[in-house]
Amino acid sequence: MAGEIWQKIGEGFVQEYYNQFDNTNRMAIANLYSPNACLTWEGSAFQGKEAIANKLASLPFKMIKHIITKQDFQPTIDSCILIMVFGQLKADDDPPMAFHQVFMLKSQNGGWACTNDVFRLGVHNIPV
Amino acid sequence: MAGEIWQKIGEGFVQEYYNQFDNTNRMAIANLYSPNACLTWEGSAFQGKEAIANKLASLPFKMIKHIITKQDFQPTIDSCILIMVFGQLKADDDPPMAFHQVFMLKSQNGGWACTNDVFRLGVHNIPV
Repeated sequence: MAGEIWQKIGEGFVQEYYNQFDNTNRMAIANLYSPNACLTWEGSAFQGKEAIANKLASLPFKMIKHIITKQDFQPTIDSCILIMVFGQLKADDDPPMAFHQVFMLKSQNGGWACTNDVFRLGVHNIPV
Repeated sequence: MAGEIWQKIGEGFVQEYYNQFDNTNRMAIANLYSPNACLTWEGSAFQGKEAIANKLASLPFKMIKHIITKQDFQPTIDSCILIMVFGQLKADDDPPMAFHQVFMLKSQNGGWACTNDVFRLGVHNIPV
């Protein structure tokens, strides 16, 4: 299904999202979200553009770089686009860490907005 | 948002999915999917219950065990439930491997069916 329109839209979103995250003011990323979007960041939930912008702006690092390992895209029966990203990130002087992130995009007002975002670092529970 | 109804439905699905995957005939898992569900398994796309059942049945191991590290749930504006699972799996005598998997559930015919499933092993590209 390579080359489908939803895949191209998804790839464009992923490129824009991490480019803005790594290279510009993280507050501006909020413009990629729908007004009532949901973000779950390491298990904590945030709803709405402002809450999401504040959360992203509050993350405790100055420099960050994401490197994408894999990205998958699917259309949904409600005409949304489901995206799963797997990669590594490097924050400040910390060692690289795996992460995975899911986005859902919906067509709104002539463009595509992110309605759902779930982020996790790839750190397993330590067995006790 | 713990204890929300969509979270409980999501948790029930995750428990049933991996229980069936690990302990019963994998062909039976197809009953958890909607008729036109999409599965993307390590980058390969399959659509429909039969194609998904055949893919899952063809996986080249006899014994498998999934251990969930994290599971996140979100409601969507189209009344679906988005699920992101992160964990480890052990297949036959192979060493444990990380995996992550996304499901989307939709209410259909009085129950909840999986309309979207994206699976990836947690293996990064090897830099060249």
